[in-house]
Amino acid sequence: VVASGHNAKTLNIGMLGHGFMGRVHSHAYATIPHIFPDLTCAPRLNTVSGMQQDQPEQFARQFGYERWTNDWRAVVDDPEIDIIDVCLPEYLHEEVCLAALEARKHVFCEKPLALSAASARGLVIKAAETPVKAMCGFNYRFLPAVRLARELIYQGVLGALYLIRASYCQESGHDPDRPAEQVRYAYGKTQLGSIRGLGSHLIDMARFMGGDASSVTGLMRTFVGARKMSDGQSYQVKADDMATLQVEFNSGAIGILTATAVATGRKNQLSLEVNGSKGSLSYDLETPNHLQVYLDDATHPELRGFSNVNVTERPHPLMKYWWPPAHNLGWEHGHINELKHFLDCVSADQSIGPYGATFEDGLRAAEWAEQAWISSRDGRRISLAGG
Amino acid sequence: VVASGHNAKTLNIGMLGHGFMGRVHSHAYATIPHIFPDLTCAPRLNTVSGMQQDQPEQFARQFGYERWTNDWRAVVDDPEIDIIDVCLPEYLHEEVCLAALEARKHVFCEKPLALSAASARGLVIKAAETPVKAMCGFNYRFLPAVRLARELIYQGVLGALYLIRASYCQESGHDPDRPAEQVRYAYGKTQLGSIRGLGSHLIDMARFMGGDASSVTGLMRTFVGARKMSDGQSYQVKADDMATLQVEFNSGAIGILTATAVATGRKNQLSLEVNGSKGSLSYDLETPNHLQVYLDDATHPELRGFSNVNVTERPHPLMKYWWPPAHNLGWEHGHINELKHFLDCVSADQSIGPYGATFEDGLRAAEWAEQAWISSRDGRRISLAGG
Amino acid sequence: VVASGHNAKTLNIGMLGHGFMGRVHSHAYATIPHIFPDLTCAPRLNTVSGMQQDQPEQFARQFGYERWTNDWRAVVDDPEIDIIDVCLPEYLHEEVCLAALEARKHVFCEKPLALSAASARGLVIKAAETPVKAMCGFNYRFLPAVRLARELIYQGVLGALYLIRASYCQESGHDPDRPAEQVRYAYGKTQLGSIRGLGSHLIDMARFMGGDASSVTGLMRTFVGARKMSDGQSYQVKADDMATLQVEFNSGAIGILTATAVATGRKNQLSLEVNGSKGSLSYDLETPNHLQVYLDDATHPELRGFSNVNVTERPHPLMKYWWPPAHNLGWEHGHINELKHFLDCVSADQSIGPYGATFEDGLRAAEWAEQAWISSRDGRRISLAGG
Amino acid sequence: VVASGHNAKTLNIGMLGHGFMGRVHSHAYATIPHIFPDLTCAPRLNTVSGMQQDQPEQFARQFGYERWTNDWRAVVDDPEIDIIDVCLPEYLHEEVCLAALEARKHVFCEKPLALSAASARGLVIKAAETPVKAMCGFNYRFLPAVRLARELIYQGVLGALYLIRASYCQESGHDPDRPAEQVRYAYGKTQLGSIRGLGSHLIDMARFMGGDASSVTGLMRTFVGARKMSDGQSYQVKADDMATLQVEFNSGAIGILTATAVATGRKNQLSLEVNGSKGSLSYDLETPNHLQVYLDDATHPELRGFSNVNVTERPHPLMKYWWPPAHNLGWEHGHINELKHFLDCVSADQSIGPYGATFEDGLRAAEWAEQAWISSRDGRRISLAGG
Repeated sequence: VVASGHNAKTLNIGMLGHGFMGRVHSHAYATIPHIFPDLTCAPRLNTVSGMQQDQPEQFARQFGYERWTNDWRAVVDDPEIDIIDVCLPEYLHEEVCLAALEARKHVFCEKPLALSAASARGLVIKAAETPVKAMCGFNYRFLPAVRLARELIYQGVLGALYLIRASYCQESGHDPDRPAEQVRYAYGKTQLGSIRGLGSHLIDMARFMGGDASSVTGLMRTFVGARKMSDGQSYQVKADDMATLQVEFNSGAIGILTATAVATGRKNQLSLEVNGSKGSLSYDLETPNHLQVYLDDATHPELRGFSNVNVTERPHPLMKYWWPPAHNLGWEHGHINELKHFLDCVSADQSIGPYGATFEDGLRAAEWAEQAWISSRDGRRISLAGG
Repeated sequence: VVASGHNAKTLNIGMLGHGFMGRVHSHAYATIPHIFPDLTCAPRLNTVSGMQQDQPEQFARQFGYERWTNDWRAVVDDPEIDIIDVCLPEYLHEEVCLAALEARKHVFCEKPLALSAASARGLVIKAAETPVKAMCGFNYRFLPAVRLARELIYQGVLGALYLIRASYCQESGHDPDRPAEQVRYAYGKTQLGSIRGLGSHLIDMARFMGGDASSVTGLMRTFVGARKMSDGQSYQVKADDMATLQVEFNSGAIGILTATAVATGRKNQLSLEVNGSKGSLSYDLETPNHLQVYLDDATHPELRGFSNVNVTERPHPLMKYWWPPAHNLGWEHGHINELKHFLDCVSADQSIGPYGATFEDGLRAAEWAEQAWISSRDGRRISLAGG
Repeated sequence: VVASGHNAKTLNIGMLGHGFMGRVHSHAYATIPHIFPDLTCAPRLNTVSGMQQDQPEQFARQFGYERWTNDWRAVVDDPEIDIIDVCLPEYLHEEVCLAALEARKHVFCEKPLALSAASARGLVIKAAETPVKAMCGFNYRFLPAVRLARELIYQGVLGALYLIRASYCQESGHDPDRPAEQVRYAYGKTQLGSIRGLGSHLIDMARFMGGDASSVTGLMRTFVGARKMSDGQSYQVKADDMATLQVEFNSGAIGILTATAVATGRKNQLSLEVNGSKGSLSYDLETPNHLQVYLDDATHPELRGFSNVNVTERPHPLMKYWWPPAHNLGWEHGHINELKHFLDCVSADQSIGPYGATFEDGLRAAEWAEQAWISSRDGRRISLAGG
Repeated sequence: VVASGHNAKTLNIGMLGHGFMGRVHSHAYATIPHIFPDLTCAPRLNTVSGMQQDQPEQFARQFGYERWTNDWRAVVDDPEIDIIDVCLPEYLHEEVCLAALEARKHVFCEKPLALSAASARGLVIKAAETPVKAMCGFNYRFLPAVRLARELIYQGVLGALYLIRASYCQESGHDPDRPAEQVRYAYGKTQLGSIRGLGSHLIDMARFMGGDASSVTGLMRTFVGARKMSDGQSYQVKADDMATLQVEFNSGAIGILTATAVATGRKNQLSLEVNGSKGSLSYDLETPNHLQVYLDDATHPELRGFSNVNVTERPHPLMKYWWPPAHNLGWEHGHINELKHFLDCVSADQSIGPYGATFEDGLRAAEWAEQAWISSRDGRRISLAGG
């Protein structure tokens, strides 16, 4: 179906994957026409592919896809498809994205972009050679409070940046009795665990605020190493479940980042504090609609404090077409705003960045993670590309 | 369109009105099949009606309604329609609901149910006589944290209830320069302003936690009385913009309620605190996913405090099919859960209450509001029906 | 001893009572010279009296009083004494204060001023006739954040006041197994319980912000009525443990007040929210150094929110001589600031009010409480003196 | 004067220095007898010394010292003095402490213990050879919430520790127009700025929770480098105003620490989060009486969240003799509890540790700071003594 009938022009979506992210993206495409009156191209939920036999059909019926298949290559090669949305397991990202770019499709690829920086670099090169839009899924950029934070920094409201503290803390890995297969970061061949899954969001958040960096110093651990498989066999986790980074930003600011899956009690805490010469801001994804802002130039000096801003009013970024003030948005709305941005870029041939994450942004997250791991192993500060 | 293809059975929706609530409900119906795998009847966005000439068509195209009209009676009388969803201006609720019930349609009517308690009473009687489902839209009952609060109370976790404090504070009316027509509660014939709009939510929240009451004592005011119309003419606001109520619940608890549209700085603060013999809870819609809970029987007495519960995990009510932990829901998800409940009740012929609000619940909100107004005028405590 | 040697002039303190408040006041007098370099008269801890045989001596040695006695009249009549500080049980306040005024001593009397409004009125009259300073102990006025709140209101920063919400919630009475003698408000002859003990603080807080009122409407309860004495005998509590008030301020604002000793989990929550035409403020004694302030005229409209002001910097009221920023004050420092104010008023012959509470303020608290009780009993709004 | 007459035994205090810390300690000694009925030796404010001509006398009169002098050596050598309390500028700590130990006085020395780890090491050796008590002033250990945090960790309530995050953020240095002499960390010969002043508190907090560490990796900066002196001359700040540390604790946990004087808007934020296998805790000195605690073993799994514990009730550590529940303590009370502990250790010949900070604790703070600086300069992880 065409998700909306409000204009004739459509962009045909080929959705690859129908897990958690496939659901979120499909729902987002369906929602976009309900919210945005300024939409120039309506997304058409054309085809979904997935590996398990019957599930694509069931998924297609649930979300209104017109067709379904078990073969992602068929979707990539289908001339009717305009956009390939990659929600497949991470180990397939490189191959699928290369094929989609080769087929000259616009590509939206969920984070993390690839298993390694080398893979990601190949994708960046391929995307640069191909006259399509390629976007990496860092959805938190599209929450109004996060966008406002970015704008305050770039408008100079905070002055020169001194310190960026960010952390992405979950407890998804802290229970040692959870079977290894169910703990995504823990179960795989790579040694990059929380630094890749949570860490890529974290690094992108830091870069979205502070830009690129010249060095990273990592300290990483695997605290919950001994697990069992569902069948009872022992499984030794090799990937980190705790990663901390010190970073030197090119701007002169420094950064302190923490990504961990064993922060007991922290459900989904992506937190941020930025201190600058003229002000500071603080954010926590567990209260996603609020940004705390401190300005040094307040007209009432005796009333200076962190202002608890509910970023849901008309003048706030990304809120123009949403609900009335403080009718709070939820986590999924970041994805909806993000895919709306992608559709706009595709239909109007506009740049994905700086608000949307490019494949280069995906690459940077991979590079920082890998270099942090080497730094942690070797006990020394390591230079970063882009620095 | 049928919003979902995942089963053959459908419920045909006739949407009356396409303003803010019409948008929210339409989006909710479209979303339900994306989220709930246990859906037995898919909503079919059959027809939308609205009074302005071209808008119904545009709205129909935006949300995928198959048909549109300027005549709500045609929808009510259409044998294809199963459900009438009333999102029309409040002054039409009585007439439209009566017609829809007369036509033996299931009816979902947005709050407030009617302009007066007498009207609401008529609707309750009509609904009782008609073998259909009739539900009143008190969406906040369907936020997981609010539902958890209710369950804790009914499971006895808080013990005997002593005090229920609730308030619904907005600042929508505090700017005297806003034209009268744009300030919904202020512009109308009734003397019930914030006590009817915000107050009906507030009263329903209090009743959802504490049940019915035997008396109310009101103190109400109009602080921003002098307004202008858009054309510059003076307009004297007659309706209250501030209402406070003292309440005696049948259970023995007492209540303190405040509804106001002139609480500068409060964007959408529906707050609640319940104190009982064994524990307390506290809630604020401005951080909608969290419930603060204090229990007196903690196993660690030196660690007693209000626990800040992020009500988004699998064991939490209404969260079974939503996102992972702390991938927070937003305001709209209350409506989605609410309409899912309504569809379930219709398709399985189940009772709307106690979790869903019945027309009787809508009537109670109207009665409390009217009696509070009389009490405020007369300076005396007044008995309530149901007490 | 003279608590400080930093000047020759002294004010001789006669302390009546050495319970909790006697300790707090004695410590406050001893602390004042350590903090305030602008002190013109040093307090001299001259004499303490108490009824139990040996305790006054022990107390005198602990705090440095030079003399001690079991006879409060001896202190009142002692020509060496300049100030009588009344920390005796409430039922003695009237008699002792009258005697002290008769003896032309300056009098500081802890709240509540008297058992009844009639008693309090007698004290007000006597104090008016006597050329001394008479102050009632409403210590919370002297916390910097509370003072700042008051100043913002009186400077017009909040504009016209619309609503004052305040509550004083504790859980001291919620355990029915606590012996009646240990629950102060519950054990006595008067029917005024939480409305007198907690309530007098609450009423004073509301009046400190909003001034006098023309009417009160009360709703009061005794939830934990059945207790035992320490010896096992049954004891029926007659005094309220829950009191709510609706108030019409002379200014046009309305108020909602709650005082309760059965708010499970609330340890010492004196909370306040004031909404005005131009801004709002919010306070909670459980985080005593912070005031939340919202202003409508912010220079950055997109950054409007409640500013979390840590009221501990040099420009803040009452902070001039205290510690550096955010070296937070505690509860006791309100008493220290308060008694410093009293000493200043005595030594410089200045007015106790408007910052300090006069006996008239103590009377108002008694009147509101009594009238609220009558209103609760009779189910009608009642006029207040001063209205 | 003897601060209290409640027993005959006294400890004669020789106070060296009468700046901010001299005031705080003197007030603390005077307060101790007012609070603690279990005091076995009363402090006697015997002598104060200071370098400016008249100030010691004035200070002595203000706090009740019996004697005063400009010569700290005279106090150290005075046989009447039992305790030397060192509140002098940091560059004097080494010389003064050595002399006091040589004279066999008990020594309390404010943090940081010495200008360098080498100096601190000398003091540790000297203290070990001398049969007296030597304590270093890390007052935050003696706030009830901090003590409770420590106890929860040592009782195993949090399980195995994974991550310790701590920061001490102020804005004291962020204004470049503040004259260099007024910015303590910035004005001195040492290159250790915020890492020594704020950092020593920070490191001690981390060690109080997590014990010793085997390595540190530092990243430090001077953001506000160009200042002027009061006379207008340029002053180039050499000392850091921003220091971040990664730490490997011997227990296996890792740590992330930040000390900075340029965190605009952060007044006195010493914050802590500890994540362990069974629970987590969180603390912020800007709300000093509250500890947030999350336990994984809650009896009500659906109510798990961080409990906001007001650590001011009788069962809480260090609260036995203070005020009633939630009559919050302030910043100064940490010092009062700390000096009470010191007096107890002296009078009962008990060990300063583990609750009190020894000179060895002071040394560790100096070592971590120095090694962090070397690590920051060299870009590599560095081993720590005690690791």
